Amino acid sequence: MNDRQLLGTIRDLIGHEETADDCAAFPLENGRLIQVSTTDMLHEATDFPQGMTEWQMGWMSAAVSLSDVASCGAQPTQVLIAAGLDHPERLRPIMEGAVACAKACGTKVAGGDIDSHPELTIVTTALGVVEREYYCRRTGARSGDLVCATGRPGAALAGLEGRQEYWENLVMPKPQVFTGQRIARAGATAMMDVSDGIAVSLYDMSEASGIGFVLRDQLPLLPIAEAEEYFLYGGGDYGLLFTIPRKKFVRLDVPVAVIGEVVEGTGVMRGDETVENRGYAHVWS
Amino acid sequence: MNDRQLLGTIRDLIGHEETADDCAAFPLENGRLIQVSTTDMLHEATDFPQGMTEWQMGWMSAAVSLSDVASCGAQPTQVLIAAGLDHPERLRPIMEGAVACAKACGTKVAGGDIDSHPELTIVTTALGVVEREYYCRRTGARSGDLVCATGRPGAALAGLEGRQEYWENLVMPKPQVFTGQRIARAGATAMMDVSDGIAVSLYDMSEASGIGFVLRDQLPLLPIAEAEEYFLYGGGDYGLLFTIPRKKFVRLDVPVAVIGEVVEGTGVMRGDETVENRGYAHVWS
Repeated sequence: MNDRQLLGTIRDLIGHEETADDCAAFPLENGRLIQVSTTDMLHEATDFPQGMTEWQMGWMSAAVSLSDVASCGAQPTQVLIAAGLDHPERLRPIMEGAVACAKACGTKVAGGDIDSHPELTIVTTALGVVEREYYCRRTGARSGDLVCATGRPGAALAGLEGRQEYWENLVMPKPQVFTGQRIARAGATAMMDVSDGIAVSLYDMSEASGIGFVLRDQLPLLPIAEAEEYFLYGGGDYGLLFTIPRKKFVRLDVPVAVIGEVVEGTGVMRGDETVENRGYAHVWS
Repeated sequence: MNDRQLLGTIRDLIGHEETADDCAAFPLENGRLIQVSTTDMLHEATDFPQGMTEWQMGWMSAAVSLSDVASCGAQPTQVLIAAGLDHPERLRPIMEGAVACAKACGTKVAGGDIDSHPELTIVTTALGVVEREYYCRRTGARSGDLVCATGRPGAALAGLEGRQEYWENLVMPKPQVFTGQRIARAGATAMMDVSDGIAVSLYDMSEASGIGFVLRDQLPLLPIAEAEEYFLYGGGDYGLLFTIPRKKFVRLDVPVAVIGEVVEGTGVMRGDETVENRGYAHVWS
């Protein structure tokens, strides 16, 4: 069983709509604003590649939650950090990295919890705020929209697989908070961040929006042999994936790559072939 | 080193004021409202006594964060849960317990994260909202105020030590959210929840408010031999500890026990004796 299947088993407890997005939503100021909130658990054995510094672990921990806030088109307002520490002296560099990442996203670490734990475990919560009209979710993609991606899909996996030039893409993902707000204001119809790979993210958005995708033959690949595999199935990049009507696409003033378009139906095609629905997943044996 | 000392080592990174309370604060609606937020990490070996059901673990996880919200005088608005699971089938009863606790506090579980983890680890985040004028913190206690406690201090430790009649106090702490709002509206000057014991909480409040406490000889003890020790030094009760001017005390319409009063100076006295500054603490060897 993987984490997506497991989430399905508690959908009735939390609500179908609530479990369809990375962030929960809460209306503020009579609904004029939406507050988004998200939490993410990372731990050393499975989430922090060997060779990462503690500063980078702190950065990454804040980044994964701030990336979820970015995917809603929201401005982050606060980060909380719960750290389960095997060695207490690891706390300070971890917090320094998290504080730096929060600052780079225009927000701050406002509090947290400290605990002792056999395996280093960091859980971040991020909050953000967005005007209701610009609030983006995984639902909303419409047939005819372009589908676009930011960043360098596949770079994090390339770093993990030993390509030193992409190491920083792996250990210091940059949450696309300012880009996300620009995309939302330009008129994106749906948006999410790509934590587990482009393919599985497209399938998630396809299911949430009730549409299908056709990818272009020409994708913005890295200049390496494994580029296509990494682009579609590599996780850890934390770029943004979004859909936008053609006539609004021209308003975009941030660099993005058009990777395909939205079509009637379901699933993800490339030419005549179905793109596999796989990517990074937590698996219980 | 314990968790309070460790927190001291990163105070400069987060801010002195921000690390003095269990909740972080964020102004809403031009400062008319304060949004409070808090996060807590629990794991099986150190936080869930043997014999607890998974439903109770979920309840307790939500309760500890909702108790922090209660201590601000705030109404909870949202709970997020990150669960690191050794066995995926534990998720559903845990979530059912957490959902029940949130519901009992007038809020809901709005989202979370699921992860695989060798040791069951649950991290809850709770948000809440309170009008600025009723927002309670650890600062604000003034000489001459009464100091009061809700609930049954020591009962959770009694349950942990094998007294079956107090088992539920241990495994199903009831966040005092409605009581907390009543106390705040009556005019409490400072408030916190008692997670680690009355004595250590009084010392925390003493330091935050820059005042001292004198406890009464007659304390509302449990009818057991260890009652005084448990009252002062037992953790896990999640009652509220607060200070309130005498003339506002009469407005209180919830059951509380007066346990002492606020005096000039520092520390915690009982008669001529200094109360020890100890309680539950996470310790790194």
